[in-house]
Amino acid sequence: MEFTFTMIKAAVIGASGYTGSELARILSRHPRISLETITSRKRAGESIAEAMPFLRGFSDLTFVDSLPDDEDYDVVFLATPHTASMKFVPDLLSRGIKVVDLSGDYRLGDPTVYATWYEHEHTDPGNMSRAAYGLTELFREDIAGADLVANPGCYPTCSILSLAPLFINDLVEGKIIIDAKSGTSGSGQKLTQSTHHPNCGASVSPYKVGNHRHTPEIKMVFDRLTGNDIDVVFTPHLLPIVRGMLTTSYASLKDGVTKEDVTAVYQSLYGKERFVRITSVPAIPSTVGANICEVGFEVVGNTVVAMGALDNLVKGAAGQAVQNANIMFKMDEASGLDFPGLGI
Amino acid sequence: MEFTFTMIKAAVIGASGYTGSELARILSRHPRISLETITSRKRAGESIAEAMPFLRGFSDLTFVDSLPDDEDYDVVFLATPHTASMKFVPDLLSRGIKVVDLSGDYRLGDPTVYATWYEHEHTDPGNMSRAAYGLTELFREDIAGADLVANPGCYPTCSILSLAPLFINDLVEGKIIIDAKSGTSGSGQKLTQSTHHPNCGASVSPYKVGNHRHTPEIKMVFDRLTGNDIDVVFTPHLLPIVRGMLTTSYASLKDGVTKEDVTAVYQSLYGKERFVRITSVPAIPSTVGANICEVGFEVVGNTVVAMGALDNLVKGAAGQAVQNANIMFKMDEASGLDFPGLGI
Amino acid sequence: MEFTFTMIKAAVIGASGYTGSELARILSRHPRISLETITSRKRAGESIAEAMPFLRGFSDLTFVDSLPDDEDYDVVFLATPHTASMKFVPDLLSRGIKVVDLSGDYRLGDPTVYATWYEHEHTDPGNMSRAAYGLTELFREDIAGADLVANPGCYPTCSILSLAPLFINDLVEGKIIIDAKSGTSGSGQKLTQSTHHPNCGASVSPYKVGNHRHTPEIKMVFDRLTGNDIDVVFTPHLLPIVRGMLTTSYASLKDGVTKEDVTAVYQSLYGKERFVRITSVPAIPSTVGANICEVGFEVVGNTVVAMGALDNLVKGAAGQAVQNANIMFKMDEASGLDFPGLGI
Amino acid sequence: MEFTFTMIKAAVIGASGYTGSELARILSRHPRISLETITSRKRAGESIAEAMPFLRGFSDLTFVDSLPDDEDYDVVFLATPHTASMKFVPDLLSRGIKVVDLSGDYRLGDPTVYATWYEHEHTDPGNMSRAAYGLTELFREDIAGADLVANPGCYPTCSILSLAPLFINDLVEGKIIIDAKSGTSGSGQKLTQSTHHPNCGASVSPYKVGNHRHTPEIKMVFDRLTGNDIDVVFTPHLLPIVRGMLTTSYASLKDGVTKEDVTAVYQSLYGKERFVRITSVPAIPSTVGANICEVGFEVVGNTVVAMGALDNLVKGAAGQAVQNANIMFKMDEASGLDFPGLGI
Repeated sequence: MEFTFTMIKAAVIGASGYTGSELARILSRHPRISLETITSRKRAGESIAEAMPFLRGFSDLTFVDSLPDDEDYDVVFLATPHTASMKFVPDLLSRGIKVVDLSGDYRLGDPTVYATWYEHEHTDPGNMSRAAYGLTELFREDIAGADLVANPGCYPTCSILSLAPLFINDLVEGKIIIDAKSGTSGSGQKLTQSTHHPNCGASVSPYKVGNHRHTPEIKMVFDRLTGNDIDVVFTPHLLPIVRGMLTTSYASLKDGVTKEDVTAVYQSLYGKERFVRITSVPAIPSTVGANICEVGFEVVGNTVVAMGALDNLVKGAAGQAVQNANIMFKMDEASGLDFPGLGI
Repeated sequence: MEFTFTMIKAAVIGASGYTGSELARILSRHPRISLETITSRKRAGESIAEAMPFLRGFSDLTFVDSLPDDEDYDVVFLATPHTASMKFVPDLLSRGIKVVDLSGDYRLGDPTVYATWYEHEHTDPGNMSRAAYGLTELFREDIAGADLVANPGCYPTCSILSLAPLFINDLVEGKIIIDAKSGTSGSGQKLTQSTHHPNCGASVSPYKVGNHRHTPEIKMVFDRLTGNDIDVVFTPHLLPIVRGMLTTSYASLKDGVTKEDVTAVYQSLYGKERFVRITSVPAIPSTVGANICEVGFEVVGNTVVAMGALDNLVKGAAGQAVQNANIMFKMDEASGLDFPGLGI
Repeated sequence: MEFTFTMIKAAVIGASGYTGSELARILSRHPRISLETITSRKRAGESIAEAMPFLRGFSDLTFVDSLPDDEDYDVVFLATPHTASMKFVPDLLSRGIKVVDLSGDYRLGDPTVYATWYEHEHTDPGNMSRAAYGLTELFREDIAGADLVANPGCYPTCSILSLAPLFINDLVEGKIIIDAKSGTSGSGQKLTQSTHHPNCGASVSPYKVGNHRHTPEIKMVFDRLTGNDIDVVFTPHLLPIVRGMLTTSYASLKDGVTKEDVTAVYQSLYGKERFVRITSVPAIPSTVGANICEVGFEVVGNTVVAMGALDNLVKGAAGQAVQNANIMFKMDEASGLDFPGLGI
Repeated sequence: MEFTFTMIKAAVIGASGYTGSELARILSRHPRISLETITSRKRAGESIAEAMPFLRGFSDLTFVDSLPDDEDYDVVFLATPHTASMKFVPDLLSRGIKVVDLSGDYRLGDPTVYATWYEHEHTDPGNMSRAAYGLTELFREDIAGADLVANPGCYPTCSILSLAPLFINDLVEGKIIIDAKSGTSGSGQKLTQSTHHPNCGASVSPYKVGNHRHTPEIKMVFDRLTGNDIDVVFTPHLLPIVRGMLTTSYASLKDGVTKEDVTAVYQSLYGKERFVRITSVPAIPSTVGANICEVGFEVVGNTVVAMGALDNLVKGAAGQAVQNANIMFKMDEASGLDFPGLGI
């Protein structure tokens, strides 16, 4: 047993949104990472207690406008929107600071794909191609050696974790249908018609059918896992809940693949994972507040119905970012993430 | 039996909000009122089918920018915000058009009270003092003879209907506490922090405690019913439902007043009303979509707990406006309002 | 114009559940059908005002234990559970009474399929094979000539209406994936773990994956429309809303089929329908309370994503039952069904 | 710094309900209390991973039928229903085990009051009169010295914490009106009509108006704080959310008491408390998952509107129970309770 260690010094840039405040919430209890600085142009000068009253008593930080140039950090979490993150990354890396970017800027590997889906030229393609894709359970080794991690989107985390075992052992063929349902916190703090309660509070609505930016991100991983060009159809829906996400996905089993085969690959890939829980029917409440993704499946004829559930702000964003930072700094992967879901 | 009658020609000004679309929804089926014109600056040129797809097939009107000068109408419903309504009323009345105003502009009787609570000078005090207050069950005769009806707010309708019997028979004394809970549609179409789903979807929040504009409106009616100066404490809360409102109110019974006395006054005032339903515990779902207010009460020691429930857009707004128009034009009070609540 | 007509005399058997009370709600306003009798073993002796307070003032019927033998009816609506309905039908038909059965007993055509999915022998296979399947827009002529209509399930109504145009014009091939989401009223009045609010109120849950009884019903219609053996994968989910349903379905377009082709078949099949509304994204609130199914689609690569929304208790149950009765008795198909959805 | 300590050995009796599983959830992370045994007649033989999948990976306990006689425990948490708890307490105390009882059995002090409100004779009146009432912030010293703590109900915790400063400094007079709103998890695991989602999912409903068992509990504390006989009117409502509670209470300020006086007493009583947070408007989401009660107030004329919010399962039940156990064993009061609320 050893009681001496150095605290990792961290900052969150763009900490005023939901992802940023969730990072602050998680890091407030992290035994090995010390959150030293939070930035927000909008909130500069406000204390966390004012801006996020639910953290009063848990953090006494005050928002600053921007990251001090003369301060040393071990890691910076970017909770900035896409196109903003790529303005920060080169400088941070050049200062020797490791970065976990929670935006879409460094996820897609290919600047052309980025330009198509994000309608914006990528200004840092070199780092983009070097970034580790931070879906921890699949790319743990890349993450361990990376100085820049592109933290996955919430939909990709849930979809990919629930489907990955099928690809790794080459059990399925043909197109992948992903029918995804997300709570409204996934849409962020910005006021919109679609998250106006009278519009969404007693409904479930498909949106961006066929053109959501998480589509190429999911496809990228499936292509990488299989070496093939996978056809992904992705339909997100907005649910009348605040936190939590469910994905229901459909793939065709190859001839001769049995339910036992499927069970075996899930067990093999996730049996020892602390943050992926195999269950018959994934349940959102079991994951709320926790860095857990529940996955399950049913075989219906030659179709496998793969299901996943998670808290979009935790395993779908800030929790996984901390999990990745833990790995980047050789800490216990579960440091600061040892809380169960609410259950109900 | 008589099969000849003239259709009442109606217009709705400011029809693009929730109240206006609810008027269009109700009037689309009214057997005696013909909705001829709907105006909206924002929606001008759009058909109702485009702007309110749920009415496609039920109305083929197109929004116009403003009411034509050269068209005759029997009645205009003003679904305009406060301060806007009082710009329209004098001209409409001078054209011989009857007006039902759904804003707060003509409800308070006294321009000084208006200026205090609405922070705006009243520019049409003469008509304000003449307007009938459109709480139908209490002021039916005033309404029948009026050319201008100030349609009540949703909170006042629910609070007053559930408490009025106690005042009429002088059963209570002291201050009146009204704890009110409303669905988010009551806040209107405007995007706000408080109706952003992540903020309100899993919560209930008090707001404008002690300073909501419906307070003086409720007090005005209680003062009028009693001839006294009633102390009203009114606390609205935002509920995570879209339609529907519940008020729970507390008053002190005078010495010697029994539960039987209370039962008798409710029965006496509402026993024959078609749109007020006495029940042990008012239920929002019983009223959704219907022009119904459910009222009930319990006696606890010397306190009477009076409860009311209604659909804030129907009996709390557009439905009562149509009920009032029916009375103004000597039609069956239930014309176009003969639909039960959804129940669940 | 003609003002003389005979009222159709109707009864509802098993009227105490959600479907039965919805029938009572709709029929209370029907201009041509007179609801004379409602039966319920559980509620016998209770007035509708006691059992369904939201209908107080709209109906003064009292539940009876069973249908009188000596009374004439034109039509009986069976709101009984499956296996109960087939005990009533032979006798009712022999009395010359037309029947609309809202249970699953007469939908599947084939007693063997019924026995497999409902785990019960069918005791009236002759009438089962004669029954018209009451998906009005597709089988209007069968319904017009039928004395027994098997009213479709809510999921089949929504799924089939949103997908049917693709089959009729033979635009798709391969398996059909239906990802369906329903409000909790679809589960009925029986208390269950899955509809206990703490379990479902902040979640969305897949259930009966691959083995829901509506699967063979959907497949039957697709097989009939195409003459082929269609592979249907159907996954229902429980939503945290009370009324309303959304289905998101996935089919593969045949080579060369374009978005214009798809648009054309939807327009061709539904352009003149009063109760099917084509829209870009179907919206549950537009259908709540109304006998409307909204349908829409997107083409994503060679996949067509077909969406449908309806109120599971109206177009998904009682409303369509009344629509079918209107047709069976040569009335205007919209009689008693002329109400728009709530919108919000 | 000291690294040696003894773990407190704990058991939960009746661990299968919401309160029990919340205790298991919280204790799974407690650094100083080791949960050794969980009992449930219904669940005996099941592992926690089977019975409460959200705790898989966080606890590997298995339910046993009853507490072993021959095992030593430092503390037992009773998550049993009222009337069951008083069967366990005498034996546990005689074994030298400290008890935190989460039922209503030992809260009321007076067996006569108990018999009236719980409709059951109290079989352990001696211990009842000795039990410390576990509202930590008010009765910390009693708790520190107690071997039996009656953990408060959720409504009393929220109501009393939000109102107590007014009594302690004698600022108010007359009756206290408490209008309380609770999420459905407060009603427990038992299936009921009122928590059936179609009944409660789009509504808010008053229940047990004037006769809820938490009424005498609240009154007992107010009487004790003031030495007077306080008239409490308490109206609970069921909200369509799962976790969380809000109370809005109304009291009359004595002549001459100002808003500054009120502010001062809240600040004085709670300024240094870690688990009571003074805020202008208490927000349920700020407390969900956390052992926090938010309190706030407004002064409206001579009425003070006192508001409180908490998570009914944490500060309203299991969290406060752990807080009390921490005190009983002289640990840091926040041990195992150092998690912030979800915020959204």
